[in-house]
Amino acid sequence: MTLYDKVMELSKRRGFLWPSFEIYGGTSGFVTYGPYGAILKLNIENMWRDFFIYKQENFIEIETPIIMPSAVFEASGHLEHFTDPIIACLKCEKRYRADHLIEELVGVSVEGLAISEMNKIVKEKDLKCPDCKGDLGEVELFNLMFKTNIGAYKGDVGYARPEAAQGMFVEFKRIFNIMREKLPLGIAQIGKTMRNEISPRKGVTRLREFTIMEVEVILDPEEINNCPAFEKYKDTDIMLLTASLQQKGEPPVNITVERALEERLIDNKWLAYFLTVSKNFVKSLGVADDKIRFREQLPHEKAHYSKQTIDLQVYLDGQGWTEIAGHAYRTDWDLSRHIKYSGVDMRVFKKADTPLTVRKLVLKPSKATIGPDFQKDAARVIEELNKLDAAEVKRQLTTQGFIEVAGKKLTSKHIEFEEREEVVKGKKFIPHVIEPSYGADRLVYTTLEHAYSEKEGRIILKLPVKLAPIQIMVYPLVERDGLPDVATQIYRELLGEGFRVEYDVSGSIGRRYARADEIGVPLGITVDYQTLEDKTVTVRDRDTWRQRRVFISELVNILKQFFEGRIYFNQIGSPVDTNLE
Amino acid sequence: MTLYDKVMELSKRRGFLWPSFEIYGGTSGFVTYGPYGAILKLNIENMWRDFFIYKQENFIEIETPIIMPSAVFEASGHLEHFTDPIIACLKCEKRYRADHLIEELVGVSVEGLAISEMNKIVKEKDLKCPDCKGDLGEVELFNLMFKTNIGAYKGDVGYARPEAAQGMFVEFKRIFNIMREKLPLGIAQIGKTMRNEISPRKGVTRLREFTIMEVEVILDPEEINNCPAFEKYKDTDIMLLTASLQQKGEPPVNITVERALEERLIDNKWLAYFLTVSKNFVKSLGVADDKIRFREQLPHEKAHYSKQTIDLQVYLDGQGWTEIAGHAYRTDWDLSRHIKYSGVDMRVFKKADTPLTVRKLVLKPSKATIGPDFQKDAARVIEELNKLDAAEVKRQLTTQGFIEVAGKKLTSKHIEFEEREEVVKGKKFIPHVIEPSYGADRLVYTTLEHAYSEKEGRIILKLPVKLAPIQIMVYPLVERDGLPDVATQIYRELLGEGFRVEYDVSGSIGRRYARADEIGVPLGITVDYQTLEDKTVTVRDRDTWRQRRVFISELVNILKQFFEGRIYFNQIGSPVDTNLE
Repeated sequence: MTLYDKVMELSKRRGFLWPSFEIYGGTSGFVTYGPYGAILKLNIENMWRDFFIYKQENFIEIETPIIMPSAVFEASGHLEHFTDPIIACLKCEKRYRADHLIEELVGVSVEGLAISEMNKIVKEKDLKCPDCKGDLGEVELFNLMFKTNIGAYKGDVGYARPEAAQGMFVEFKRIFNIMREKLPLGIAQIGKTMRNEISPRKGVTRLREFTIMEVEVILDPEEINNCPAFEKYKDTDIMLLTASLQQKGEPPVNITVERALEERLIDNKWLAYFLTVSKNFVKSLGVADDKIRFREQLPHEKAHYSKQTIDLQVYLDGQGWTEIAGHAYRTDWDLSRHIKYSGVDMRVFKKADTPLTVRKLVLKPSKATIGPDFQKDAARVIEELNKLDAAEVKRQLTTQGFIEVAGKKLTSKHIEFEEREEVVKGKKFIPHVIEPSYGADRLVYTTLEHAYSEKEGRIILKLPVKLAPIQIMVYPLVERDGLPDVATQIYRELLGEGFRVEYDVSGSIGRRYARADEIGVPLGITVDYQTLEDKTVTVRDRDTWRQRRVFISELVNILKQFFEGRIYFNQIGSPVDTNLE
Repeated sequence: MTLYDKVMELSKRRGFLWPSFEIYGGTSGFVTYGPYGAILKLNIENMWRDFFIYKQENFIEIETPIIMPSAVFEASGHLEHFTDPIIACLKCEKRYRADHLIEELVGVSVEGLAISEMNKIVKEKDLKCPDCKGDLGEVELFNLMFKTNIGAYKGDVGYARPEAAQGMFVEFKRIFNIMREKLPLGIAQIGKTMRNEISPRKGVTRLREFTIMEVEVILDPEEINNCPAFEKYKDTDIMLLTASLQQKGEPPVNITVERALEERLIDNKWLAYFLTVSKNFVKSLGVADDKIRFREQLPHEKAHYSKQTIDLQVYLDGQGWTEIAGHAYRTDWDLSRHIKYSGVDMRVFKKADTPLTVRKLVLKPSKATIGPDFQKDAARVIEELNKLDAAEVKRQLTTQGFIEVAGKKLTSKHIEFEEREEVVKGKKFIPHVIEPSYGADRLVYTTLEHAYSEKEGRIILKLPVKLAPIQIMVYPLVERDGLPDVATQIYRELLGEGFRVEYDVSGSIGRRYARADEIGVPLGITVDYQTLEDKTVTVRDRDTWRQRRVFISELVNILKQFFEGRIYFNQIGSPVDTNLE
């Protein structure tokens, strides 16, 4: 049994995660988090918030819808670019990822190849459907967004978002205003995202529905190397596999982020800073230093919006180095596109040190033509027109021959332009974006695999104490002689104090300890016969199986100190000689 | 300006919530939570977890997918029942909620009317499209689930879930097993839900995408009046509007839950218990006692699965009594249906006090017919057949004439039945379900409206301290003389200690206080000239505008005590005579 199989078996049996809809035969690409997995995932999300929002200055979290109207994805480029090549069998109608199928049948990588080139290979090699040996059709592009209709009108198409980021971009203007127009501004979001994968992988590596955790760090491109927070972390060592090393077939280098920046392996300081935040975050999930590396995406792998993307990969059993986060320098791509497609000016004003003289294009609604052409709507047309950016209006008139204002089509006869010289106190610019983006589901699996250990033929899930879904188990040694009463009382007190605690009375004490170890419960409290005599209980440590005795009256206080990280296990109460494994 | 308009204006301006996709003209039914709204919503969700999961025994949380295959909703009845009547104009093609349109045009309530009766009214009254005066078509049923395709095959239809509950039901068997087969078992979920409303309302009252918080309390129907936790809350007073009072046009009664139970106004004790949990929860959001009432749904309003549904309503300005939670007794509807549609036995075994003699139907695969008919698949067919419940197999053979086993159609010639007398140690039963279900978005609005107050022409958002998105503001009195340095240092220390804190330096101190009051920040810390002399700062209370002086060295400790509810504001440091409003 591979480590992967062991972790997934444990996950299913103990209630962390498993494939959804089992009673209906399952649907690949969907996963269910059980009683322990759902809390583990929440704990990981909250730890991420700590690193990527709460501990950063001027970083905030928002929540935007999953379903978005098609206009958003026309602007973002996802309607055009967010596709995979597919090929269908003309006989049995089965569909395949075209690149995967060609790789499988021909044995060569077709990554980055154009559709026409893939079609050529299919024809030349006379490839057939592996299932029924039927002829294959043409390679086509399949959009990976889930499509639906909003409302009862067939025409109102919407899509489930394939990333959270667009929610931040379309709301940027209002948020920037609310946050008192300061840059850099970090806008984060944790939420569900959907990608209609053609061939979802096993486990959680390629899901159709998953939780994304993203921050869009919005900044002045002229300040992209001004990152005060970087100073503290500049000596962080990273294992870095650049695009160029990959192209040369060479292994990654170990290098400090500062040096990598000097050697221009990382585009800018803010991007470099987030590599260090990411490394520290992933280490706090329990992943060892040598199982974390950064890989730059190759030119053909990068998303359409990215200047440089550096993935964080962790080493997973059976899957090798696996991407769990991306750090993309999205430049001004998204904001520029939304400005263009919505006609709303989302540029940011920047005060200059000294006033500047600039030539500025201004527009003047031509009342002589607008009046007669639009009658009673003329006033509204003029009002709306005056709100628009002159350069953008001119661009649209030039490219498409008209511009829509207040629902009316205006042509060049309705608008006059004029260049004016103006003394301005600053300039407007489109901010740039650095984006660290995480998949929460992969983090849950990574955390589980790296916590998995075995001792004397038993499984111990050594989850970091902060992430453990259940902090404390409470047990009566046996189910008689009044022990359950005392244990229940302790259980309820701890529940009331806000601990995540469970009461377990079923089976032998050894079996109950074993179950708690498999769930990763850091501490167990056992009420035994000595409890009835001296009002003490034992506290058991998951990782060492050692036990210590504590007065019930001191329990809450000691447990608080332990879970706040203020005392170690061996500072709890007094030692116990024997244990009950 | 109504209170509703004031709250929404504040929400938008200060960054709690606003309609989504504004730059693209907006799409009704979608809402965005800004920097303060997203945290407020998270805080409300976590408070809900406290009341409905963490403080309940054997209650756990799971996370299941939003997109589910159609098989789930065939079984749950949503494909058939989750509909609204619509009517389209034959000329301009505009679509309307048929019942709303008839009510608007004719002025009578058509609630609960059949489609045929609505069609009759449309014809008799010769109703026309209010927009273009065109003829109207037939009233039809429109399914409110968002539809999509899973994968590249057109046939694999999926729907966005209209409630979280089905996720709990389809996973019940595994979760029950993980939780060591104890009832009652509470399975909770907080997550996004989608309903393709035909006419979404303004604000957050009827959204197309919203967050649901649900618990399915799964229990033995014979134990539905055995609820030990109820005892502590049985004297809780509630304002109750029964179906019968509504039918008689009478006002609600004030009654204890215990008395309501005795008078059979509430179906069972578990349902009654959750009314008390709900009331306490909603009060903790800051809603006054007399703004909370419980309304029983009328027979025609109830969902297809419900025996009794009691809504919790809060009084909102302009909207009147508004449903923010439902408490439904779903009986065994859902589990029965999923057992039937999936063929998986999800019944629960219950040990009897004394062994019972029962007549039991058993099935015997008829090898003489299965062998020849299914050849090499025969062994697998027999194996699968033996796993099925005999009574269910017989039912399917009787109703549809065949049963599908291992992909093969079996008829009655393949299966023999026999009744046997057996001494059994217990029986199997289908558990029943009580469901408290909340809309998180409505709770956010409710919390904001009930926190909204005005004082001397200024707005104060008196959010409960536990819910405040920002706990502390840190201000330098002025932006010079070293005050910002000290303030920044305090800000960073508090950030490091895990407080939700903001630093504000922009504008006069009075304006900054006013902004903090509008966001509902409970405490403000001001660094002034005295700070430079004696290392003290002032702490300002949002609700009273009073200030007290505290040593910086004691700040963290005092703030912790305040936010844990261990000290009151007037126990902080020493009083200050003047304040700076």
